[in-house]
Amino acid sequence: MTDRVTSDFIFGTLATDDLRLEALRGNRSGVVHDNVLIPARPIPDQPTTVVVTVGQDVAVIDIVVRFSSNDTMPTGSRDVVAFQPDTVEWDTLVWAYSQRWTATLPGFPRGTLVRYEIEATLVDGSTVGADLDRWTGQPTPFAVLVDDDPDPGWLADSVIYNVFVDRFSPGDGRQWLSPDALDGFYGGTIRGVTEKIPYLADLGIDCVWLSPIFPSPSHHGYDATDYLTIEPRLGTEADLVELIDTAHRAGIRVVLDFVANHVSDRHPSFVSATTDPDAPAREWFSFRSWPDEYRSYFGLRFLPQIDTTNAAAREFLFTAAEYWLRRGVDGFRLDHAHGPTHAFWAEFRARTRAVRPDCVALGEVVETAALQRSYAGRMDGMLDFLFLQQIRAFFAFETETAAALETFTQRHLAYFPPGFTLATFIDNHDMNRFLWVARGDVDILKMAALYQFTLPRPPIVYYGTETGLKQWHDVEYDDGSRKSEESRVPMDWDGIDTSLLAFYRDLIRVRREHPGLWAGKRRIQPGTTDDFLVVAIFSEDASATLAINRGSRPERLRLPSGSNVLLHTMDNDPGAGWTETIPAKSAVLVLHPVARP
Amino acid sequence: MTDRVTSDFIFGTLATDDLRLEALRGNRSGVVHDNVLIPARPIPDQPTTVVVTVGQDVAVIDIVVRFSSNDTMPTGSRDVVAFQPDTVEWDTLVWAYSQRWTATLPGFPRGTLVRYEIEATLVDGSTVGADLDRWTGQPTPFAVLVDDDPDPGWLADSVIYNVFVDRFSPGDGRQWLSPDALDGFYGGTIRGVTEKIPYLADLGIDCVWLSPIFPSPSHHGYDATDYLTIEPRLGTEADLVELIDTAHRAGIRVVLDFVANHVSDRHPSFVSATTDPDAPAREWFSFRSWPDEYRSYFGLRFLPQIDTTNAAAREFLFTAAEYWLRRGVDGFRLDHAHGPTHAFWAEFRARTRAVRPDCVALGEVVETAALQRSYAGRMDGMLDFLFLQQIRAFFAFETETAAALETFTQRHLAYFPPGFTLATFIDNHDMNRFLWVARGDVDILKMAALYQFTLPRPPIVYYGTETGLKQWHDVEYDDGSRKSEESRVPMDWDGIDTSLLAFYRDLIRVRREHPGLWAGKRRIQPGTTDDFLVVAIFSEDASATLAINRGSRPERLRLPSGSNVLLHTMDNDPGAGWTETIPAKSAVLVLHPVARP
Repeated sequence: MTDRVTSDFIFGTLATDDLRLEALRGNRSGVVHDNVLIPARPIPDQPTTVVVTVGQDVAVIDIVVRFSSNDTMPTGSRDVVAFQPDTVEWDTLVWAYSQRWTATLPGFPRGTLVRYEIEATLVDGSTVGADLDRWTGQPTPFAVLVDDDPDPGWLADSVIYNVFVDRFSPGDGRQWLSPDALDGFYGGTIRGVTEKIPYLADLGIDCVWLSPIFPSPSHHGYDATDYLTIEPRLGTEADLVELIDTAHRAGIRVVLDFVANHVSDRHPSFVSATTDPDAPAREWFSFRSWPDEYRSYFGLRFLPQIDTTNAAAREFLFTAAEYWLRRGVDGFRLDHAHGPTHAFWAEFRARTRAVRPDCVALGEVVETAALQRSYAGRMDGMLDFLFLQQIRAFFAFETETAAALETFTQRHLAYFPPGFTLATFIDNHDMNRFLWVARGDVDILKMAALYQFTLPRPPIVYYGTETGLKQWHDVEYDDGSRKSEESRVPMDWDGIDTSLLAFYRDLIRVRREHPGLWAGKRRIQPGTTDDFLVVAIFSEDASATLAINRGSRPERLRLPSGSNVLLHTMDNDPGAGWTETIPAKSAVLVLHPVARP
Repeated sequence: MTDRVTSDFIFGTLATDDLRLEALRGNRSGVVHDNVLIPARPIPDQPTTVVVTVGQDVAVIDIVVRFSSNDTMPTGSRDVVAFQPDTVEWDTLVWAYSQRWTATLPGFPRGTLVRYEIEATLVDGSTVGADLDRWTGQPTPFAVLVDDDPDPGWLADSVIYNVFVDRFSPGDGRQWLSPDALDGFYGGTIRGVTEKIPYLADLGIDCVWLSPIFPSPSHHGYDATDYLTIEPRLGTEADLVELIDTAHRAGIRVVLDFVANHVSDRHPSFVSATTDPDAPAREWFSFRSWPDEYRSYFGLRFLPQIDTTNAAAREFLFTAAEYWLRRGVDGFRLDHAHGPTHAFWAEFRARTRAVRPDCVALGEVVETAALQRSYAGRMDGMLDFLFLQQIRAFFAFETETAAALETFTQRHLAYFPPGFTLATFIDNHDMNRFLWVARGDVDILKMAALYQFTLPRPPIVYYGTETGLKQWHDVEYDDGSRKSEESRVPMDWDGIDTSLLAFYRDLIRVRREHPGLWAGKRRIQPGTTDDFLVVAIFSEDASATLAINRGSRPERLRLPSGSNVLLHTMDNDPGAGWTETIPAKSAVLVLHPVARP
C-alpha cells in the first residue's frame, strides 16, 4: 500500500468526453421534458408553461400534456392541453435540429400537487411519451407542487455537521471496537452523538446530519432493511428522541439520511418480491425478468432500486418520512436523489411539509448544474458537488487557477434561483478526506475552509475535518479498487488538532457575526494571479477582502486604513504591525471600515 | 479502379465527434462574440445589442466595445460602450459555466457601416480581444452594415444553373479537347455558354452561375492570378459582356464565382510579397515566418490566403467586384466565404450594393447551421450544404428515414430568418454527382429533384444533372485519394437523357406556375413510413400533396376528389384511371382543388 494521493472521481457518470457525449445525446433524442417549466416553480393561480424539446429522430404530428390536480393520475381527455411548436435550435454535436414546443397549464391554488404526462403522436400513428426511462422504456410521470415558497429560512443560515454514526462516538464510556476491516463495525452510537452535543454546540454548528440509522447489514446503513425502526447497534428510537431533544435544546437541528432510491436486498419487501410471485411488493421494484433481473443502484444486486412510479412504494417511503418528522426530526438529506423521479420529490415535498412546514429536503444529485437546478421547487437545496470539485482542484490538486476558482464560484452562485440552497463541503464519506488530498498540510485545509465559509451557502463540516482527523490510506488501492471507507476511520477524540478546531470555531463565529456580508456581491480584484486570489465581498452594510495565497512566495495586499483582520491562517498573528503581507500558503479575511452616512 | 460508391464527405472539418468537440470547445473559451447581434440585422436609428460569451478560462474585470461609423477603424475612448454581465449558462461538455455579457450600441442611419472591436480587461491587468484568430492570435475586427433590406427579391424566386466553364460547351463549332487527365483543359469557353443560352432559356432557368473565369493555372480557376481580366482559354471581357447581354435578353441573370479567401501562389501580388521584403502586398498575406510560412487555404501552399483585415487587400477585392458589376454581372457566388471575416462581408455588401443595389452575394460556408445563420445581413444567402447532405442521405444512401428528412427540412426552413436565402442543390463540382451515388438510377434522381423543387428556396442545377451526365469513376480512388474532377466530365451534348431533361423542364415550369405555394406551410402526413413520405404543402391559395416512395413496394395515397397530378416520376402517366397508387421508386406532386369563397 503506497501513500499516493489519487485524483478525485466525483462525477463518475460524467467523467469523460464519451460519457458526456452519451448523456447529451440521450437528452437530444425523442421528446425531452427534463422537468422544464416556466417559471420553474409554478406560481399559485397563474399559468405555467411546459417546455419540451423534440429531437430529429421523431416526426411528431402533435404533442399534448394531460394533467390532474385532484391527486389522481392524469387520464382521459378533459384536462388536456396541446403543445405548439416554438423555436428551432441547431445542435452541432448531434448534427441535427431540435425543436422546442410549449404548452400552457392553467393556474392552480397554492398547495396543489399537479401531476402531468406528456404524449406525442408520431407520423406513423404511434404515440411516445417524454423522457423515456432507460430501464423500463416507459415515459416518466411528472408532477410539481404549486408552492413557490423558498426553503425554510433556517437552512440557508445554518452550519451543518455531518456525522457518520458508526464512526463518531461510541458513548457511554465505551471504547471503539476493533473490527478486522474498515467496513466492520466500530461501535459508534446515537447516544454517542448525544453525548457530543456540547462539543458540537461549542463548535458552533446548528444542524447535525446523521448518516443512515435504520436497520442495515452494513456499517454505513445505505442499504436499509427497515425504515421505521433504528438499527439496534446504533441505539433505539428513544435514543434518537433523546438526541433530538438534547440537540434542539442546544439550538441544533437534526437531519436524517433518507434513501428513497433503493433498499437492501435483505429488506423484507424485496425478499417477498423475489420469492412470492403474487407479493404486492413485487410492484415496488422493476423486474426485467423475475426474479433474477431487476433494476438496482448502479447495477449492484444487493441494492435493488425502488420503483417510485408505483403508488404503494411511494406510500411506503412517504409514511416513513412522516413517521420520523413526527418524532422531531428536522428534515432529510436525500441519498442518490436523482434515482427517484422529480414527481416523487414533488409529492415528497407536499407530504413532508404537511407534517412539518419548516422541514428541509437536501438532495444528493451528483450531476450537472443544469440537472441540479431542475430540482428547484422540488427540494430545498442540494449538496454542492460542483463546488466540492472546484475547491479541491484549486487548493489540493492545484489543477485550477485562483481566477478560475473565483469565476466559477461567482457564476455558480448566479446560476441557481434564490431560495434554492446549495450546501458546500470540502470532503465527505465517499472520497479522500481533504487533509489527505492536501497531503496532510493543515494550512491548506484552513485556507480552503476559509474560502468555503465566505460563501452565502450553508457549509457542511464532515466529522473530523475540524479536528485534523487523518485517514490511513488513499481510497484507491494499488489494485485499482476503491475503498471509500478509508475516509471513515473512527473519530480520534484524543488526537484533536486544537489549533485547527479553534480555527473552525472562529470560522463559524465570524460567519454568524456578519450574516449579511456573505449574501453580498463578490468581485475578483486586480492583483489576482494563478496562485494568489483577492476577492472583494461587500453588502450595503459591510465590506471585506478575502486574500488567499496558495503560492510559495509572500504576496502584498493593499487595504484601506482601519481595516480589521477577521480571520487568518498565518502562523503569526497579524497584529498592529502587520505589513499587509500574506505569507506563502496562507489566507486572510479582512473587514473594512464602512463610512456611515 | 472499382465502381464502388463512397459515402459523402461534405463537412470535412466537422465530420467526427472529436472535430465537433474541438470546434465547440474552441468556441467556449476566452471572449466569444461570434457576430451575435440583437437584432441580427441592425435596424436603422435603433439600438443594437452586442452579445459576448465569456468562458471560465478568463477572469474578466470589464469588457468594452469600441465602435466607429465614419469609415475609420475604431480607436480612442470616445465611442466606447461597457458590457454588463448577464445570464450564466452551464456547459456539460467543457464542464464549466459561461457567462453572457451584453452592450448596447446606439442607433445609426441606414447605410452606415459600423466597425467595432471588443476588448476585455482581465484580472491580471492584461487585455484580450474577442474571437482570437487561430493563425495570428489577433482579435477579430467586426463590422456590420446598418441595412435591414432583405435579399434582392429575384434571388429567392430564381432557378440557378451552375456552369463549370471548362466543361460546359466549347462553342464556335469546336469539339472537346482530349487532355491526358481530368484536371487538364477540355476547352469549354464563355462563348460556348453564350451559345447555350437558348438551351438554358428553354430549360427555364433564370440565373447562370459561372465557375471562376479569371486567369488561373488550373482547369477550375479557384486559384486566380488576376481579378480584373478573363482567362484567355475561356475568352475575353468582350465575350463575357456578350454572354451577359445575351443572357439578360433571355431573362437570365449572370453570377460570377468570386474567391476572396485566397489567390494562386503565382498571383503577382503574392510573388512580390514573397520575393520583396518591402513589397506593399506583403501585408495582404499572413506570414508567420517570411517568406516560407504563410497562411493558406487548408494548408495548401499554392493557395495563399488573403488577410482581409488589411485595408489594401480589402480594397483590391472590392475594386474587382465593383469592376465586374459595372460590366453587367448580377452578383457573386462567394467561394469559401468563412475564410474572410464577417466584417469583410459587411463592407463587401456596402461596396457592391452601392454599384448595383440588386446584386446578390451567395456564400459557400460549409459549416454549422448556427454559423451559416450568422451571415444574415452580411450576405443575401448561402449554398445549402446541410440540405445537400440530408437529401443525399435519404434518396441516395438511404441512411435516413422519410420522416427524418422532412422533419429536418421543416426545421431547417424555420431556423433561418426571412430574407436570408439558402439555395438548394443535390450535387456540385466537389463531390460525386447525384446520379453516381444513386448508382445510375434516374428515377431516384427525379424523386430527389422533385423534393428539392418543392422547397421555398432557389434550386441550383449543376450542369449535366438535368441531362443524366455520368461520371467515369468514384471521386474516391482505390488508393484513398479524392479526385473531385470525376464529377466535372465534359457535358455530353449528344448523350442527353431527354426524358430527364423534359422532367427538369416540367419541374421548373410547375415551380413557376405556383409561386405562392412553396412559401406556404409543410406538414408531414400520417402514413409516412421510413421509405414513404407524404407531405402536405399549402398556402392561402393552394394546397398540394407530395408523395415519395423510396421503397420497393407500391404505396397508396388518399386524395380529395378533383385532385390534379402536377408532376410525377412514374413510368406510366397517372391519368384519369389512376388508382392513387405510388409504385416503388417513384414520386408524385398533386394539386388539390381549393374551394373559392
